[in-house]
Amino acid sequence: MFSSDKGCISHDGIRGKEWGTPVMLSTGVRVYVLKPLLIDYLMHAFKRVTQVIYPKDLGYMALLAGVRPGYKVLEAGIGTGFLTAVLATIVGDEGHIYGYEVREDFARVAKENLRRLGILHRVTIKIADVRYGVSEEGIDAAFLDIPNPWEVVDVIGKSLKPSSPILVFLPTANQVIKLLSKLKELGSFIDIRVFETLLREYQPDEKAFRPLSTMIAHTGYIVFSRYVKNT
Amino acid sequence: MFSSDKGCISHDGIRGKEWGTPVMLSTGVRVYVLKPLLIDYLMHAFKRVTQVIYPKDLGYMALLAGVRPGYKVLEAGIGTGFLTAVLATIVGDEGHIYGYEVREDFARVAKENLRRLGILHRVTIKIADVRYGVSEEGIDAAFLDIPNPWEVVDVIGKSLKPSSPILVFLPTANQVIKLLSKLKELGSFIDIRVFETLLREYQPDEKAFRPLSTMIAHTGYIVFSRYVKNT
Amino acid sequence: MFSSDKGCISHDGIRGKEWGTPVMLSTGVRVYVLKPLLIDYLMHAFKRVTQVIYPKDLGYMALLAGVRPGYKVLEAGIGTGFLTAVLATIVGDEGHIYGYEVREDFARVAKENLRRLGILHRVTIKIADVRYGVSEEGIDAAFLDIPNPWEVVDVIGKSLKPSSPILVFLPTANQVIKLLSKLKELGSFIDIRVFETLLREYQPDEKAFRPLSTMIAHTGYIVFSRYVKNT
Amino acid sequence: MFSSDKGCISHDGIRGKEWGTPVMLSTGVRVYVLKPLLIDYLMHAFKRVTQVIYPKDLGYMALLAGVRPGYKVLEAGIGTGFLTAVLATIVGDEGHIYGYEVREDFARVAKENLRRLGILHRVTIKIADVRYGVSEEGIDAAFLDIPNPWEVVDVIGKSLKPSSPILVFLPTANQVIKLLSKLKELGSFIDIRVFETLLREYQPDEKAFRPLSTMIAHTGYIVFSRYVKNT
Repeated sequence: MFSSDKGCISHDGIRGKEWGTPVMLSTGVRVYVLKPLLIDYLMHAFKRVTQVIYPKDLGYMALLAGVRPGYKVLEAGIGTGFLTAVLATIVGDEGHIYGYEVREDFARVAKENLRRLGILHRVTIKIADVRYGVSEEGIDAAFLDIPNPWEVVDVIGKSLKPSSPILVFLPTANQVIKLLSKLKELGSFIDIRVFETLLREYQPDEKAFRPLSTMIAHTGYIVFSRYVKNT
Repeated sequence: MFSSDKGCISHDGIRGKEWGTPVMLSTGVRVYVLKPLLIDYLMHAFKRVTQVIYPKDLGYMALLAGVRPGYKVLEAGIGTGFLTAVLATIVGDEGHIYGYEVREDFARVAKENLRRLGILHRVTIKIADVRYGVSEEGIDAAFLDIPNPWEVVDVIGKSLKPSSPILVFLPTANQVIKLLSKLKELGSFIDIRVFETLLREYQPDEKAFRPLSTMIAHTGYIVFSRYVKNT
Repeated sequence: MFSSDKGCISHDGIRGKEWGTPVMLSTGVRVYVLKPLLIDYLMHAFKRVTQVIYPKDLGYMALLAGVRPGYKVLEAGIGTGFLTAVLATIVGDEGHIYGYEVREDFARVAKENLRRLGILHRVTIKIADVRYGVSEEGIDAAFLDIPNPWEVVDVIGKSLKPSSPILVFLPTANQVIKLLSKLKELGSFIDIRVFETLLREYQPDEKAFRPLSTMIAHTGYIVFSRYVKNT
Repeated sequence: MFSSDKGCISHDGIRGKEWGTPVMLSTGVRVYVLKPLLIDYLMHAFKRVTQVIYPKDLGYMALLAGVRPGYKVLEAGIGTGFLTAVLATIVGDEGHIYGYEVREDFARVAKENLRRLGILHRVTIKIADVRYGVSEEGIDAAFLDIPNPWEVVDVIGKSLKPSSPILVFLPTANQVIKLLSKLKELGSFIDIRVFETLLREYQPDEKAFRPLSTMIAHTGYIVFSRYVKNT
């Protein structure tokens, strides 16, 4: 039995139904059987154990890095696996994600989430701290969602194909300031840019069109740069 | 000879250089040979003939629709081809984009832009008005960037696999209001949501971290919905 | 006895204390006796019966209209009295606010709020619908916070000194569109401008400076214009 | 002769006209004689010599501090005099602004701007660095728009009536972080809050209602706090 605040329906009442078909709840309310999209998995089916990166940032980060089928991507700090799921969806079966996570309990949840999406085979999760080095080489793009990226950007840079992008997600201005200092000191990162995305959702009411009253005001800053040879 | 405001360099001085390698301009300024990313093509190499959809919206729209390798996508109003380029990059060689455009001159520019990116073979461009019908079926996701989407959502819906997403990009509140009325009247679109993305870029200066003084304040509203059978 | 989540203190423990003096709560927590500011009255002491106009909009609206000591201001739809309180504070004892409100229960609360601030004598509250006319003349600025301003702008305009500002606060885009149509049709309003203010509050933490996670995303649109003779 | 891009008109064609009256330009275009508002002076008549504080911030800052007729206000860093003009307008003839400015050339322009508004008599401008002390006492509210406020907040605090507000305007996150550290170290400032205002202007077109394409993305952060006795 599946139950919600709108009413109940037996699993048999849904099973075998074509996507997009209406079914009737116990309350007489008509609902539809929808094929879940990637955002449905993220927002409704994924188990959460950490702060997550929201869709407003996920889409922009993937685009900035130019992630595409076949890409080999390194990710440090996979947490709940939201970004991992987006990246693994886009790189397809020819690509691969090398995901580092220091907390085994987070990694376990991320694995479960990715398995649910059917894309766990595209991801290698390592329980390790990237400060002690990464074994990958020839990486197309790197994503860091860890509290201390300034300690590892050098190591991560060396795993990248020259001129490839590295994206760092950071909640506070203090962290961004510290990272910018490090990137400039190292001299092997150029085209440094910092972004913040904001998403406004509107009341989808044709008689009273207006933004919703509250919104997520801040998730984090996105620091983009490209790794070059500084010799 | 390649020349910029920073200085000049002969094509021979660049040719054959590995990505990420520094080269010296005539002025003594050191610059780097970078492998262009998708956003570099969009923002610097693409010829523009129309208002374009910006990266802040492109990434979010692709994510909302769950575009992935192998997807068959319908796009109405390809214009300069920014969205087409993003979609065709993600769907890979197994996917395909069916792009409609009424203006032949726009389509010619879009083709040239996509050829430059090496992904024109993933796109079929049709010089036609979607109001007179589309021949595709079993489409995974549809994107509309046309001034009068309320006239065509019904037709486009029928080309979609049931429960698949349709995303409409619209500059004005009046258009959103008109579209919302139509979607509700038709009754075959559910989970209607309206979004607006904002992107703030920051001065990447560790001594004076602050948002840039001006920003793009508005490009358009994104209307998301899913097509269902309403029988 | 005054009690809070931090602890209690007897009224005698506060009475007679100089502003800015520390006092000790029952829990040993040190707090300060603060002289309330206008925003403290609005956000903490005012009883609320309606949606209110927030400080982010109040300050900007007062500035746009150039409200100053001695001004005679007309306000339609005083509701809880937030805007009335701000206007009556600025116009001083030489100025005056003529406030219309159709709901007697709202007017009663507004009066109580203004009395608490000690500025009720600067405000004349009338239980009346401005659609049936206003008796004031030579008004310096008018403020409307009512759902149907297009029905009254003409009447209100005539109460204004020529070329004086009228500001309308409206929650939805549909209302703004309707008002803009009316203002243009009448032809006696010029310099029409529409604004929306957004306020981001930051975590005041020198070690983790970042915007608060959530914010008020929308309160309303501010429509500014000036009344002229259109003969 | 007054001339604009719309056409010309002789001063005699305007002189003596009632506010709000239409007049005809040489081109046949009808325009109106408007009584200038405070924002007209700020945005069109004031000579500018520095970065200015914009209306979106001016209105909110004045409201936060509860500025009203009769207030004695201290301002450090008057620059072009935008904030001074707003404060001096609101405090009226019974109030007063004590404005400090280290640059004599800025002070000269500010004076000229305030004289134009007819409120120079409400302002005492001192060419002095507040780091060397201020002679005022019993101030109701203080405003700082200087690059190094952490060096002077202690001095300024002592000139304030206990529990009165001090507002600091700062362009960069680094400055805010430094100020927050100082305020906490001193221990005599409480209720510390940091804000940022954003203003979106809309196209006032009832057929195409939408935000303008570009906007001012950042002017500065507003740091609010109250001075208390910390003994």
